[in-house]
Amino acid sequence: MKELEFIKYISKRPLFKGIGDDCAVLPYRKNKYLLVTTDMIIEGVHFAKSDLPYRIGWKAVAVNISDIAAMGGVPKYALISAGIPRNKGLRYLKKITEGIEAAARKFSVKIIGGDTNLSAKTVVNAALIGEVEKQNLLRRSGAKPGDLIFVTGALGEGKKKHLSFIPRALEARRLAANFKINAMIDLSDGLAMDLTRLASASRAGARVYKSLIPLSETTLSLRGATKGSDEAISSGEDFELLFTASVKESRRIIKRMGEKLPVTLIGEIVPKKLGIKIVEESGRERILKPEGFAHI
Amino acid sequence: MKELEFIKYISKRPLFKGIGDDCAVLPYRKNKYLLVTTDMIIEGVHFAKSDLPYRIGWKAVAVNISDIAAMGGVPKYALISAGIPRNKGLRYLKKITEGIEAAARKFSVKIIGGDTNLSAKTVVNAALIGEVEKQNLLRRSGAKPGDLIFVTGALGEGKKKHLSFIPRALEARRLAANFKINAMIDLSDGLAMDLTRLASASRAGARVYKSLIPLSETTLSLRGATKGSDEAISSGEDFELLFTASVKESRRIIKRMGEKLPVTLIGEIVPKKLGIKIVEESGRERILKPEGFAHI
Repeated sequence: MKELEFIKYISKRPLFKGIGDDCAVLPYRKNKYLLVTTDMIIEGVHFAKSDLPYRIGWKAVAVNISDIAAMGGVPKYALISAGIPRNKGLRYLKKITEGIEAAARKFSVKIIGGDTNLSAKTVVNAALIGEVEKQNLLRRSGAKPGDLIFVTGALGEGKKKHLSFIPRALEARRLAANFKINAMIDLSDGLAMDLTRLASASRAGARVYKSLIPLSETTLSLRGATKGSDEAISSGEDFELLFTASVKESRRIIKRMGEKLPVTLIGEIVPKKLGIKIVEESGRERILKPEGFAHI
Repeated sequence: MKELEFIKYISKRPLFKGIGDDCAVLPYRKNKYLLVTTDMIIEGVHFAKSDLPYRIGWKAVAVNISDIAAMGGVPKYALISAGIPRNKGLRYLKKITEGIEAAARKFSVKIIGGDTNLSAKTVVNAALIGEVEKQNLLRRSGAKPGDLIFVTGALGEGKKKHLSFIPRALEARRLAANFKINAMIDLSDGLAMDLTRLASASRAGARVYKSLIPLSETTLSLRGATKGSDEAISSGEDFELLFTASVKESRRIIKRMGEKLPVTLIGEIVPKKLGIKIVEESGRERILKPEGFAHI
C-alpha cells in the first residue's frame, strides 16, 4: 500500500467497525441513553502550528459537542488529554486550557478529568459524555425516501471558522424536542461525505439541489454561487447539522424557520437505487462522490 | 519558566484541578457509580519509536483499565483515538488495533468508538468507562493513621514490563469485594510519587520499610536488594496497586495472601505531622520525596 493510499485509508475509516453514528449509545436510565464520543485534534492536521492555543482548546471540545448534538443529546462531562511540545511553555498550555474551559462553560459541560504529556507536536483529545431522552435520540440511519433534507446555517465556511465555530447544540435540541426528525449527522467532513454517510446508513439515496445550498454573504461575494457551493459540497469542518424529516413534518419545520431555527431545505431522500446525486444549476444531475475532508 | 521547569510542571500536574482520583466518579444507577478515565500515550514519552505496535495498543488500553481497577471498578467500554505517522503504513496500524482489541477482550471491555488521524508521531488515547457498586468504590483519600499499607505483585519492573503488563483488575475486584479497603491507587509514577498522592489525599503521613518492598527474583539477582528497591521507589509504570486497610482487616488479608491475592505488607499510615518516610535497611528514616516518573 502506497503512502497516499494509506493516508486516504486512515483519514476516512473509523478505527473500529460497527460504529455508525457520531456517538456510541449506552444504556443509562429508564428513559435516557448515555452518549459517548471522542475526537483527537492534531497539529498540522486539524490546526496549524501558528494557530492560537485558545482556539485549539476551544475546537477540541467543540467538535465533540457537535457529535453529541448530532444525536439529539445534551453534553454533560468532558475528559481531556493533551500533548504539548517542550518548547511551547506554560503560557501556551494555559491558553489551551482557557479555550477548553470556555467551550465547556458555554455548554454547561463539566470537565471531570484530564492529563498532560510532552509531545513532539501539539495534540488534544477530548472524550465527551452526554445524555439523551430515549424518544429524542437521533441516528444517521432513520432517513426514508420522500423525506426532505435540511442543513443548519451556511456551508463552506469551514476553513475560516473551524477553530471558532459554535456547535449547533441548542438548535439540535430544539429540533429533537419539537419535531419528528428521522435522521441527523453533523457536517464534519463536507456535505458530499456526510450526506453519503447518512444515506448509506439509511439504505437510501439522496438528491441535493446545488442552488439551494445556503452560503454566507461573504462566501457569495468572494467566491460566487457556483464556486461557493462546490466548496460547501467538498470541504469539511462546517460542523453544521444535516437532517431529514417527512414532508408533513418538514412543513412544520419550514413554518418555524428563522433566527431560532436557522435551517434551509436542500433536497430530498430518494430510493437507494437512484443513488446520491447533486442537481446542478443547469438541471443536470451528477453523482455525488464521497470526497472532501479538506482539513488544513 | 525554563524548559526543564515546564517539563516538570507538565509531567506531574493534572490538566484540571480537583480531580484527585484515578477516575472521575459520576452518578449512574441507584446502587452503582460510573467511572470514567482517559490516558494518552505518546511516542518518545510512554513508548519508543521502535516498540512493537501491538504492545503500544495493548498499553493504551491497559493503563486505563488499571485506573478503573484502582477504584474498585469493572471496566466496560472503551473509546480510542489514534494518530499514526504517514510513513508507518497499514500493517503498523492493524497491529496497534490488534493490541487494543486483545487488551479489551481479556477484560471483557467493549470498544464502542474511535477515530484515526495522521500525526507526526504515534499517539494513542483511550477513554474508558467502567462501573462500580457504591459500597465497593475505593478512593485515594480514605487511609487512616494506623492502617497498614500493601502493594500487589513485585515492584521495579516498570521499565521491562510497561508495554505488556496485565492490569490488576481481578485482584482489585477481589480486594474491594472481600475486604474493607480504606484507600487505593495504582502505581503509575512510582511508589514515592503515588504513596505521596494517597497520603496527601488522606491528610495522613506514611512509613514504608525498604526491606519489605517486594522485588522479583530477576530484579534481586540482577540489581540486588538495595538498588532494586531504590528503583522500585523512584521508577514508574509498575501498574501494581497500593492500598491500605485497618490492622484488623489487614489480619484477614494476610491470612488470605497467596497466588489469588498476591499482596505484600510494606508499611503503615501515620499521622500527617510525621510526614512520609522510608525506613532504610539500617533503620534510618529518610523523607520520601515525590520524585520519580521515569518514563522512557
